[in-house]
Amino acid sequence: MVKVGIYGASGYTGQELLRLLLQHGQVEIVAITSRQYKGLPLPQVFPGFQGLTNLAFVDHTPEELAALCDVVFLALPHSVSMQVAPVFHAARIKVIDLSADFRIHDVETYENWYGKHTSTGLLAEAVYGIPELNRPAIAAGTFIANPGCYPTSVILGLAPLLKGNYIDQDSIIVDSKSGVSGAGREAKVDTLYCEVAEGFKAYNVGRHRHTPEMEQELSLLAGKKITISFTPHLLPVSRGILSTIYADLTKKTTAAELLDFFREFYKIEKFVTVYPDGTLPNILSVRGTNYCHLGLIVDERTNRVVVISVIDNLVKGAAGQAIQNMNILCGFAEDSGLNMMPLFP
Amino acid sequence: MVKVGIYGASGYTGQELLRLLLQHGQVEIVAITSRQYKGLPLPQVFPGFQGLTNLAFVDHTPEELAALCDVVFLALPHSVSMQVAPVFHAARIKVIDLSADFRIHDVETYENWYGKHTSTGLLAEAVYGIPELNRPAIAAGTFIANPGCYPTSVILGLAPLLKGNYIDQDSIIVDSKSGVSGAGREAKVDTLYCEVAEGFKAYNVGRHRHTPEMEQELSLLAGKKITISFTPHLLPVSRGILSTIYADLTKKTTAAELLDFFREFYKIEKFVTVYPDGTLPNILSVRGTNYCHLGLIVDERTNRVVVISVIDNLVKGAAGQAIQNMNILCGFAEDSGLNMMPLFP
Amino acid sequence: MVKVGIYGASGYTGQELLRLLLQHGQVEIVAITSRQYKGLPLPQVFPGFQGLTNLAFVDHTPEELAALCDVVFLALPHSVSMQVAPVFHAARIKVIDLSADFRIHDVETYENWYGKHTSTGLLAEAVYGIPELNRPAIAAGTFIANPGCYPTSVILGLAPLLKGNYIDQDSIIVDSKSGVSGAGREAKVDTLYCEVAEGFKAYNVGRHRHTPEMEQELSLLAGKKITISFTPHLLPVSRGILSTIYADLTKKTTAAELLDFFREFYKIEKFVTVYPDGTLPNILSVRGTNYCHLGLIVDERTNRVVVISVIDNLVKGAAGQAIQNMNILCGFAEDSGLNMMPLFP
Amino acid sequence: MVKVGIYGASGYTGQELLRLLLQHGQVEIVAITSRQYKGLPLPQVFPGFQGLTNLAFVDHTPEELAALCDVVFLALPHSVSMQVAPVFHAARIKVIDLSADFRIHDVETYENWYGKHTSTGLLAEAVYGIPELNRPAIAAGTFIANPGCYPTSVILGLAPLLKGNYIDQDSIIVDSKSGVSGAGREAKVDTLYCEVAEGFKAYNVGRHRHTPEMEQELSLLAGKKITISFTPHLLPVSRGILSTIYADLTKKTTAAELLDFFREFYKIEKFVTVYPDGTLPNILSVRGTNYCHLGLIVDERTNRVVVISVIDNLVKGAAGQAIQNMNILCGFAEDSGLNMMPLFP
Repeated sequence: MVKVGIYGASGYTGQELLRLLLQHGQVEIVAITSRQYKGLPLPQVFPGFQGLTNLAFVDHTPEELAALCDVVFLALPHSVSMQVAPVFHAARIKVIDLSADFRIHDVETYENWYGKHTSTGLLAEAVYGIPELNRPAIAAGTFIANPGCYPTSVILGLAPLLKGNYIDQDSIIVDSKSGVSGAGREAKVDTLYCEVAEGFKAYNVGRHRHTPEMEQELSLLAGKKITISFTPHLLPVSRGILSTIYADLTKKTTAAELLDFFREFYKIEKFVTVYPDGTLPNILSVRGTNYCHLGLIVDERTNRVVVISVIDNLVKGAAGQAIQNMNILCGFAEDSGLNMMPLFP
Repeated sequence: MVKVGIYGASGYTGQELLRLLLQHGQVEIVAITSRQYKGLPLPQVFPGFQGLTNLAFVDHTPEELAALCDVVFLALPHSVSMQVAPVFHAARIKVIDLSADFRIHDVETYENWYGKHTSTGLLAEAVYGIPELNRPAIAAGTFIANPGCYPTSVILGLAPLLKGNYIDQDSIIVDSKSGVSGAGREAKVDTLYCEVAEGFKAYNVGRHRHTPEMEQELSLLAGKKITISFTPHLLPVSRGILSTIYADLTKKTTAAELLDFFREFYKIEKFVTVYPDGTLPNILSVRGTNYCHLGLIVDERTNRVVVISVIDNLVKGAAGQAIQNMNILCGFAEDSGLNMMPLFP
Repeated sequence: MVKVGIYGASGYTGQELLRLLLQHGQVEIVAITSRQYKGLPLPQVFPGFQGLTNLAFVDHTPEELAALCDVVFLALPHSVSMQVAPVFHAARIKVIDLSADFRIHDVETYENWYGKHTSTGLLAEAVYGIPELNRPAIAAGTFIANPGCYPTSVILGLAPLLKGNYIDQDSIIVDSKSGVSGAGREAKVDTLYCEVAEGFKAYNVGRHRHTPEMEQELSLLAGKKITISFTPHLLPVSRGILSTIYADLTKKTTAAELLDFFREFYKIEKFVTVYPDGTLPNILSVRGTNYCHLGLIVDERTNRVVVISVIDNLVKGAAGQAIQNMNILCGFAEDSGLNMMPLFP
Repeated sequence: MVKVGIYGASGYTGQELLRLLLQHGQVEIVAITSRQYKGLPLPQVFPGFQGLTNLAFVDHTPEELAALCDVVFLALPHSVSMQVAPVFHAARIKVIDLSADFRIHDVETYENWYGKHTSTGLLAEAVYGIPELNRPAIAAGTFIANPGCYPTSVILGLAPLLKGNYIDQDSIIVDSKSGVSGAGREAKVDTLYCEVAEGFKAYNVGRHRHTPEMEQELSLLAGKKITISFTPHLLPVSRGILSTIYADLTKKTTAAELLDFFREFYKIEKFVTVYPDGTLPNILSVRGTNYCHLGLIVDERTNRVVVISVIDNLVKGAAGQAIQNMNILCGFAEDSGLNMMPLFP
């Protein structure tokens, strides 16, 4: 059994890692940390674990945790992660960082969007962990920067179009909608039930911090610098992201042709499902799972393609993809512990 | 008191007309029809009216209803409305048709998107009833084609940009999200609670029937033929539409400058509210009201403007706008019966 | 125009008072206070008021506010209200206190459930403001203790049964379910969207602070000391309370007979609606209104009566009833500003 | 691999059986039937299965299906199930019937609540399948009447109290709240999103058909005939039942003492979790799982006990318990395929 620790396990992402790792047959969770809940049994914070585990939160230092485990998941806010990551890396522990701190290769870009980076030395070690596009580097790595939730949905939706040269790379508009769990479990008026239920709004339009992450990866795919429009919205649901992606087609193409290319592109990928022509995915169809479902239409009237990409933001958009990366790092079957069916309704 | 009838009053739009008209000081509801609920007291179908009215559903012919009233609202499905509208018009009753049947001026366009039109003679009489852009024609008319819900949100959001020549007219992309009441009160698996709650999906992408209606009105505003991309989505809320509208700016402009132009453009309009720079509306802020709230940002990185337009689909998107049109037709104050504050939370 | 102030206007109850008072034709809101939001325009805190008012929050002392107005609403947490109430009362301002501080006549009972009472001198002045049962005292008073949300639903549902001697007074069990707005607008993990949506739980079972308030009023109605079982639950809705009330019948009775008695009992009451035999109310039917809807069944198998009582916790359960009390205090028509129809769906 | 069939697989219960059985390591699904969806691939009806199975609906006769499988699940409406069950039983197939048709031992009682029973000969064969109370009979049986959702939550919550003689058996009042999936996937106005969201209501008060089923099992536990009050309510959530159960204590007891007795009573039961003193369960904590969570308080003021029992109506209340029964019938580990963690948030 591989020994894993979770550093910062009291948020929704930490809880989701726990849900999935407790059902993973090849790992043992040796410690979960939380400053706020130190000493409390896990079910006192997340009652759903009542009767299912004896884990309790500890407040270990990074050094203490590193001494206990083979793999660590960092489920911390950005800028906090970069303070502890070097300790784990120095201890030769495999690190999967779920924060944004090591996703952006270019320090200046990071600092423009996020603020000061204090651990730039580790950037060169960090592998951007989207297995479908970056599997060999992940397998060879020891430090994974786990992708953001919006970027995962968008990059998987656009990769075939960019690789296949189907679209005008300056025409990309991404309109995304996310469930509330993406905002975390911190007490804030903005995410109270009464503020969210029966509501819907855009936020951080044109300035969401996932923008440079998407642009970096899309540019790598396209072989040229890409700038996109990105508008996130807050959905009155707990989980799920749906990204509606618009781009101008460079030539006349049918949806059927594009879907064939998508299917070929993702042929070996268990966690990417391409929909039949004429059908489009709903976030409900991936709830609780590590799948990304993709559908598209071609609008002949405007010669644009519209891709619909859905994921569960806490699974493929966070904890599930992190475990997928762990499986690759550890030489497990890539879908180990990730064979869930969606919970519907 | 002006005598009004509602032909087809058992759906959500009919119910909303009732909610608003029962509180309108200058009208008397003389009859509400429903084939399905004939003879039933209104509260038996909509329990919220318990104790508030003695109205009951009747199954009058158009001729019978026309004999009773001065104004009639047609809250019928498209293609049904065109069968009865001529009777009311011939009886010299003021008609406000909430269906799509008389919104599209061009018969061929209508038939391409909707199917056979059997009452083309009335098309020339029909005035497209968006008061903020078409008030004089409405005031002079007797037959109003009440706009669709999506088109209302989109046309009000784009009108200043088109009139001010701020945008490339071929670059318009509209990504809209609507509450479930827009799908009506018919029993369908697709709109069951369990199919909608915690879900989100796009539907009819590139082929929604509101597309030609928007294109017609936007083309009139622009003075040239406009084609748009339109993607509607189903939100897990009962009411509300939010349209996110993208367009390429033709010149460098700031959000502040555009917002000033919007404010000037809608200066006399009670039902259009332009948000301060840096703020964007939520559908909750117009719930139950006849307001359209508009906000925008300029994305300097891509030189695009993003307009956010929100309405309540059942009020400004249907029954409220219909009453606003009635007020104009009857010479009432335009906001008569429409001075509601939003219900929040 | 009567001049009104709201002391503590930044919560959901304060907001609801604003929604209703801004539409009330006989009052002028002269000041709204908030320590936290001092100086901010109202729409910056509650965007739904955008364009509808120029009010901004001030941080007046009670003395300053008292000097400006004829009536003041105290929308403060319990124990805070008792600190400022005496100032307003001394200034001969009409006071409507929405906290629990002056609802319990017996100091010892108050202190057992809530903690120290520091303004006991005012208790004798306070009139329990449930107009349907206490109208003359309200009309003669100057200081109103506005009832709690759960007690309003329960007292109105039980009053006829107790007055008519239909039930065993020791057999009362109240199972209530409330929307989340009852928990206020403070940022707390427990009321985050993700903690509430798709969930349901009981809380404070057997020890909710509304228990002694209900027992006090039910005892007055019965003419003897009554003890009840009370179980509140948290519903995943923003507004609404439904109380399911069980009691053993003392004699064989039919639902029809009881309903007749209820209708007679509430004959002159505009805001209490008794349902026809065989029908029961839904919280949706009173959403946004000041109505209490009552239905009941008699279970012959167990000889119990089950009363279903629904209200909107923010209206009849708080702000609406407060305005009903203000109307009585000021000699306005009792339904002035309260003629809303429910917002459905 | 044991071969299983599902007769009537197109509702929410059928879908849930599929979700669980597709992840069960010891069975193979050989056929799923649906008259309505005959010929359609499963993902066309339930898109969440896209890419996960090649199953398609067939319209086999009972005889045809019986020839293919070792175990059959009947997920049919009551009165339909009794028409086909005898065929499967005669074919010596193990049958797990999820309808109500064989739960009531007494024909007259069944017919009073449900209507004509046309297969009374099989009643003697049917074992009421609540494993925690009836395991030996299930293991020895071949025909299981799978319990109703409400009864499962109520019987598990009351069994220790009755067995331990803690309560007055005539004082039981059950106030239950269920998610909408309990109403099935049929298109009905009552379960449309707009009718349910933000709403809450009681229904079938005093006459819900699960009443005699509960009374039968509670009477068996008590050793005397028990009559209860039962009030079901419709929660605006997709899944979950919470039952609040009231009973008069026969002697002075503490919650701690009762909880100890509960823990002892369910000591060997994996799927029943008794909460620590002072804590009560939320339906979210069992979502998607086969667990029943129990908590209770003692109200010293009224000498009543209040038990809170939560289950997922589609799992422990239907498909999960059915599989638990199958595991017993087939000699599998009882938790085989049922080791899920709850999906939260």
